Parts: sequence; structure tokens; C-alpha cells
Amino acid sequence: MDDKILSIYLDDRLPTPLYIQLFVQLKSLIAEGVLKPNEKLPPIRKLAQRLGINTITVVHAYKKLESEGLAYSVVGSGTYVASPSRYEPQLQRQEEDEHLQMMEKGQVQVSKDAINFASTTPTPDLFPVDSFKILINKVLDRDKGQAFGYHQIQGYQPLRESICHYLEKFSIKVLTDDVHVISGAQQGIDIISKALIEYGDCVFVESPTYRGALEAFKSRGARIVEIPIQEDGIDLEKLEEMLSVYHPKFIYVMPYFQNPTGYSYSYSKKEQILQMARQHKTFIVEDDSLSELSFTKEQPLPLKAFDAYQVVIYIKSFSKIFMPGLRLGFMVVPQALRSRVISAKHTTDISTSGLIQRTFDLYLRENIWQEHIEYMRQKYKKRYETFLKAVKESFPVSVKYKAPGGGLHVWFELPPGYNDQEVYARCLKKGVLIAPGSLFYHQTHDTRHFRLSFAAVNSEKIRDGIRAMGEVLHQYVEQEATLAPSSQEYSPLL
Amino acid sequence: MDDKILSIYLDDRLPTPLYIQLFVQLKSLIAEGVLKPNEKLPPIRKLAQRLGINTITVVHAYKKLESEGLAYSVVGSGTYVASPSRYEPQLQRQEEDEHLQMMEKGQVQVSKDAINFASTTPTPDLFPVDSFKILINKVLDRDKGQAFGYHQIQGYQPLRESICHYLEKFSIKVLTDDVHVISGAQQGIDIISKALIEYGDCVFVESPTYRGALEAFKSRGARIVEIPIQEDGIDLEKLEEMLSVYHPKFIYVMPYFQNPTGYSYSYSKKEQILQMARQHKTFIVEDDSLSELSFTKEQPLPLKAFDAYQVVIYIKSFSKIFMPGLRLGFMVVPQALRSRVISAKHTTDISTSGLIQRTFDLYLRENIWQEHIEYMRQKYKKRYETFLKAVKESFPVSVKYKAPGGGLHVWFELPPGYNDQEVYARCLKKGVLIAPGSLFYHQTHDTRHFRLSFAAVNSEKIRDGIRAMGEVLHQYVEQEATLAPSSQEYSPLL
Repeated sequence: MDDKILSIYLDDRLPTPLYIQLFVQLKSLIAEGVLKPNEKLPPIRKLAQRLGINTITVVHAYKKLESEGLAYSVVGSGTYVASPSRYEPQLQRQEEDEHLQMMEKGQVQVSKDAINFASTTPTPDLFPVDSFKILINKVLDRDKGQAFGYHQIQGYQPLRESICHYLEKFSIKVLTDDVHVISGAQQGIDIISKALIEYGDCVFVESPTYRGALEAFKSRGARIVEIPIQEDGIDLEKLEEMLSVYHPKFIYVMPYFQNPTGYSYSYSKKEQILQMARQHKTFIVEDDSLSELSFTKEQPLPLKAFDAYQVVIYIKSFSKIFMPGLRLGFMVVPQALRSRVISAKHTTDISTSGLIQRTFDLYLRENIWQEHIEYMRQKYKKRYETFLKAVKESFPVSVKYKAPGGGLHVWFELPPGYNDQEVYARCLKKGVLIAPGSLFYHQTHDTRHFRLSFAAVNSEKIRDGIRAMGEVLHQYVEQEATLAPSSQEYSPLL
Repeated sequence: MDDKILSIYLDDRLPTPLYIQLFVQLKSLIAEGVLKPNEKLPPIRKLAQRLGINTITVVHAYKKLESEGLAYSVVGSGTYVASPSRYEPQLQRQEEDEHLQMMEKGQVQVSKDAINFASTTPTPDLFPVDSFKILINKVLDRDKGQAFGYHQIQGYQPLRESICHYLEKFSIKVLTDDVHVISGAQQGIDIISKALIEYGDCVFVESPTYRGALEAFKSRGARIVEIPIQEDGIDLEKLEEMLSVYHPKFIYVMPYFQNPTGYSYSYSKKEQILQMARQHKTFIVEDDSLSELSFTKEQPLPLKAFDAYQVVIYIKSFSKIFMPGLRLGFMVVPQALRSRVISAKHTTDISTSGLIQRTFDLYLRENIWQEHIEYMRQKYKKRYETFLKAVKESFPVSVKYKAPGGGLHVWFELPPGYNDQEVYARCLKKGVLIAPGSLFYHQTHDTRHFRLSFAAVNSEKIRDGIRAMGEVLHQYVEQEATLAPSSQEYSPLL
């Protein structure tokens, strides 16, 4: 072992912390195969002496190798290089993440014939461009230069009034001062993170959850605790258990057509989570981008509508069902957090484009917004029905799912022993893009799910794509049924 | 003392850390006068026992009181409540900060007759609304729904090409892949902070500097080291000294018409800071919002133009001399940081409004941008000359300044013993708003400066406002000349 680490060189003049320098170099040695799977790493004290550094630096570097799945420790013995099956998924992870992020936003260059079930972004033909043009010209003629000055950090006052009025439809009664305009939901998550998370603080998330939120929390140095989501909402038993151990700054949830599962909270779970948050003196961050897209008669009410105790921070995006490229949304924030949120917004980008705010204000005031939502709901309802029908006809029955009744995507579960990455790769060969489920977890521990969205695919292509996927799945699940080693089921390492 | 702290109650179920809870309650007791100036706080061990908490929690709370100027410690004796003269400026600080931020953006409600030298935001009558309207309609007709989809995280490709072309005028030669579109300079600072600063990392700033940058760095948990700025740029001796002690992630500078001083770097200092950054393996973040606004024949070149070693991250805002409310700018980022910056931008707001990007692209391509800059330069040059002439005629000679030769503001120095807050208050009574200098420091240690901007005031009002200020200054400086206690000169506590 000794000669293998000869190449390690640490430079304490570099801005990178020593333990990171050490970690990076050990990682390279593992990747290059110099350090072999299951080989023991040098004892901590010895390596520290050798490199002239503190033992704690070596401890941190080894811990980081472990947390990235590149090493494992054996109590009383030492730290060992992990075998590739343990760390490969992790190594690929970052690249895949970026790939998924691009796919979701419809930015991956796929061949013209490819069918993109990974993207949750509506196609440009659905955007209300004509009405937008009329309204933006109206604003320019009316407001002239005023439309281009800095706007109030919290947002253009008349828009905040329109939003209050709009929220009444969802039984949310708030003051204009409770409303904060943001440049899209992702910015809302970022601002709340800035306002509430200090380095080392804990936040709770549903598991699986939206990757962009995980990234924002990680970027603030948060400890992330994953609470499983069930078909009727977050696992309350687990939540209660974790709340008795940790004191999270907030619980991040999507109570309607959750991303990626499509699950919605039952009324009872809504009531209980509000009570728990109050009792444990924490906040709930409610991320709502899809609640208007219900395809059943039931019009779901956000958690915020029941928020008697001011524990809910409500984040609303207009992107998914309006025009993603506009970057506009809003938050409703409890009064106790108002000044912190304003200050975080200022640090983030000072204010949201005044021109876009003024134009959207007219959308709401002239009721064009309501018409547009209705139009989108009809469009998507049709796609949703086509999608479910095709799935029923083509997918093996062993691939399970729950029809969400709204939203833009459905979550599928493979039988035990099968792997989302494999399905992803096989579909890609057939020209079909899917979102592998492992991308929606903080710690990779689930590889049996995938998410399909019908946001960016028209009905005809939905039928073609699902049929092609059906073939892939039948072949994979049935052909390899006998090969799937039962020991891999529920393996905690995968 | 004992009974005075009876009211303190800590709740470890709250998300707020215990030391913050303790700090907040002690702060209240000081503010309410329960704890008196120069009164000794309870010994650490005793208070910890009493409250049933760890001693380290008390240490942290006391340290925080000290860092906010509310307490001071005497070696070997203990911690004492500071006297009001020590902490009052600090207490007012946050409110004033918010006030200044609002003033700068032209958002403070001042009476119609008030003269706002605090705002650095151009007035709406200077914005090129007509050309904007033509171009945005051109984009809507040409691109339709495409203008509203998600755009590449890094920015709309044709705009990045136009920017490359634009940069050639400043001898900056880069590839489109080096250019990242951002929603204004503040967002650029926020993204760079996310990409480079981990909790506890160190960054260097010029002192004084732009408050919005300080806020962004603090929000990431950075340790901020202030390096004084001189009339020809940053103090290189001090910089070298600090670089030998700390390893900053970057040095944040504004080499042209610095905010708030108006100072510009000499050629020699530009060369040397680049070499130092290279030698000490750190980056330079160059924030350039005003380099086009030179009123002399010399067209200054940004540091980025000399960046042979890829150490400069160049942030360019279009706000100040275009339309602040549009929220648009760009960065040129060394290749080594590209993927980190893209990832941070994604976490921040996914992408900048595509419609605005496409419209601005036409501004650059059709050369309307260049015409607009020329128009603004002429307008501001006239205001600048009027401003300097009025100052010369009206201000006492003991109030010093250096004519910056460009930009939007001038930095003034009061004689020793005089105070910016007092000038601020007296001017306000006369209907004139100014920016007190103490707002531009991380640690308050300078109270003898103030910044005046002519961005938002027309020539006639400039004359009136400076005349009114002249009276205030003459009265303050001359009337109280004999009263100014010499002991207050250079007092390190103020």
C-alpha cells in the first residue's frame, strides 16, 4: 500500500481544504485502479504522519470517501476501498443529474423522432403568445419608462393585489404584504433556503422529491432528512419519529401531484402535518406548481388554505402551466419571516423584472389567466387519458403505478430485483427518454422506479412511445425473470 | 445581576439554536435597560449551570453580543454590557441598510421636492422604451412560443455570441462557452458565491465596497477580510500581507469608478493584482457596471482584458446604464469553473427570462445598444460637470473628494471628528438624501465619509441640492469646529 500513496501531495497554500485535496487524490487512485476494490486504506495515524497533517484531516477525507460510496469501514479494522458495484452509480450520478435537469427543461438534444417522457415542460405551441403580445404592448404604452425601473423588492404592488384576489378562489385569505413576487419557484426555494437555513441546519423532505430543491438545500450546507411519501401523503409515523429526534428548519412538501410520484395528500394527512409542524415549532414549505391541473371534479385546496397557525410558506410557480421561460411566481410568507425573506430576495437578484410583473398583472386582472388554465387543463386531461390507456394496453402487469388524477407525470415501480438504469438505457436505444427514479433521492437507495411525463409529448407520440416502452419492459421483466437474484431484493446497498 | 436574568427561557425544541435564543434575550434586556452599560454579565459557567446548558452555548452568545457591539470583554475579568455610544450605530445599522438599499434603487418615498443624491439608479425618462418596444415585438413575431420555453441554463446561444462580439471592443477575447447570462449583477455575485464559497471560507473585498456583495458573502457564511482602497486602486501592500495569512476563495473588486469611492485602478495596480492572484492561486471577481461611463478620453479596459492566466471572473451588469428593471447581465468565467457556475445558476433560478435575452440580443446586433450608451454618456457627463462645479462653489474646502472622471457618484471626506450620520440627518431636514459612508463597510470603522450620486437628479436640481448641502456643511463644520473633541479623531471604536 505504502508506495501506492507516494503520489499524494497536499498544498496548504491552496484554497481547497486539505481533507478535500486528500479525498480528491484518493478518489483518483481508486478510479485509476491503483487502489483496488476491498483493499485496506492506510491506517489514519500512519497516513497523517506520512503526509505531515492532522489525523482529523485523514478522518474527514475517509468519511467523505464513504459518503460518496467509494469506501466502507469495518469496525475495529479500518477503511476499505469499495467495490465498483457500490460506487459506480454514485460516480455516474452527477452527470446523470445534469442530464436529467436538461431533459426536464426540454433542453436535451434528442433526434427529431425521439419521444421525451423525461421532460415536464409544456411544448411551445401551448403558450398563449398572442394574448401576451397584446398585454405587453398595453403595459409599454401605459407605463413607459416606469416599467423598467427597479421595482419594490417584494414585488409590484398591483400584481400582489391581483394575486391576493386570485388566491381567494383557493380559500387562501392573505394581505398583499404577505405576498412576495419571485422569478420562478426554484428562486423561491433558493430564497427560503437563504432566509432559514444556516450551515448545519436540518431540513426534512419527502422521499423521493424534486432534485432542484435538494440541490438548493445542499448548497446551504443543510443536513437533509428524507421522509418516505406514501400514496396518500408523507409517512406521518416516520415524520413524528424524526421530529422527536431532529429540529428541522422546515419540512419541504408538494401536497398535490407530487414530483416525481404524482401522489396527493389526503385531507386527514393535511390536517395532521399542520398540527405536527405547529407542535414541533417548525415551518412547512409547500411547493405548488400543479394544483390547478386536476382532471377529476375535485378541486384540491393547498395546505395554505388550512394554515390557521401561520406555519406554511406557500411557493407557487406559474411556469409549468404558463410559460416557463418567463420566470415568474410568488410566495405567501408568514409575517414573522417577512423581513428575512425580503432581505434574502434582495441578496438574490434585487427584484423580479418589472415589465414581466406588470404584464402578468394584466393577465390576472383581465381574467385571461383563468381561461388559459382551463385550456391547459383540457389539453392535458386528454393526453393523460391517452397515456393511461396506452400504459394499460402495453405495460406488463408487474410494473405498478397509481393513476394520479392530475398533474403531468406518473410514477412506475419495477418488480423487485430490476433496475431503473437498465430500463433507462434500453428505452434510450429505442428513442424513448425516461427519468430514472434514483435521481429523485438524496441518498441513492431506490432503483426500482421511473417517472414518465406527458407534458411535452402529443397524443400520437404518447401512443407510439408507450408501445415501444411496453416491448422493452416485457422483454426485460419477463426474459430476465429467472435471472433476477432474490438476494438483490431490498438490498440496502443498492 | 441574578434576578435580572430570571426571565431568560431557552427552548431546545425551537429551530433557533440555543445560543441565538440566549443572544436575542440578552439583547432585549440590554435594549430595555434592564442590563445597564458597563454592567458585568454573569460568569459563563454560572449562567450555563443556571440555564442547564453547555458553557460553549453561553460563549457563543457572548461572542455574538460582542460582534454586534453590544458587549465587550476584559481579559481576565469577564464580559460587560457596552455603553450606548458603542452599540447604537450598530443597532441602527440594519434599518439604515434597508433604507439605503431602497434609496439606491430609487424606492424611498420622498417628497416630490426632495433631492435624492443617494440613488444610483437612472430616472425612467432616460430609458430607451421606444426601441425596446420595437425589438420585443420583433422577437414575439419571429420566435413565438419558442421565446417562452426554458432556455439553456448558461444563456441563449445567439445572445452569448453577440456578447463575445461586444467584448472585443474592450480587448476581451473569449468563446461563447465562457459567457454565462445572468439576471443582473447581484445574481452574478450570488451565483459566484454559491459556486465558490463554502461555510467558513474567506473572501477579500475592497474597503469600502458595495453592500449587496457583502450581504451575499455573509449569507454564505464567509469570513470577510477588508482591504483598504486607495485613489489608484486596492492597497497592494496590505493585500500581499493578508494573502500570506489567509487563502481567500477570491478577491472582489470594482476596478472602475468603484462603488462607493469612484476610484479607478492604475495600470500598474491592475498588472500587480493579477500576478498576486495567480501566485496565491486565488480568483479575482471583477464587478463592472460602469466602465463605459468614462467622461475623459481614456477608455478604460477591464482587468479581464489582461487576464492571461484565467484568474478573473468578470461580472457585467447592463442595469445601471440601461434599464435596471430588466434584470440582465452576463459573466465571463474561467473554464475550470464553468460546470460549477452552471450548476449554481440552475439552483438559483434555472435560467434567465428567454424573452428578455432575445430582445437584448437584437439590441446588440442592431447596434442600438452602442447608440444608447453614447446617449447616456453625454447625459451623465453634463450632470457630472454641473455637479462638480456646484460642489466647488458651495462646499467648505475642508470637505475633501477626488473627481472620478466617470461613473455616477463621488465620495466625500469630512474633517476628523465629524460624523456622516450627522450630515445625513441635517441634510434630510433640508430635503436632501445622501448615502452615509458607514453603510459601505463590513465592520463599522469609518464615519467620516458620504457618497453623492447624480444618477437620479437633473442638472437644475443638482445645483439646488448641492447649494443646500453646502449650507449644511458650512454650518456643521465651521460652527462646531471648536467643539470637535480631538480624542474622537481616529477613534478605533467609532
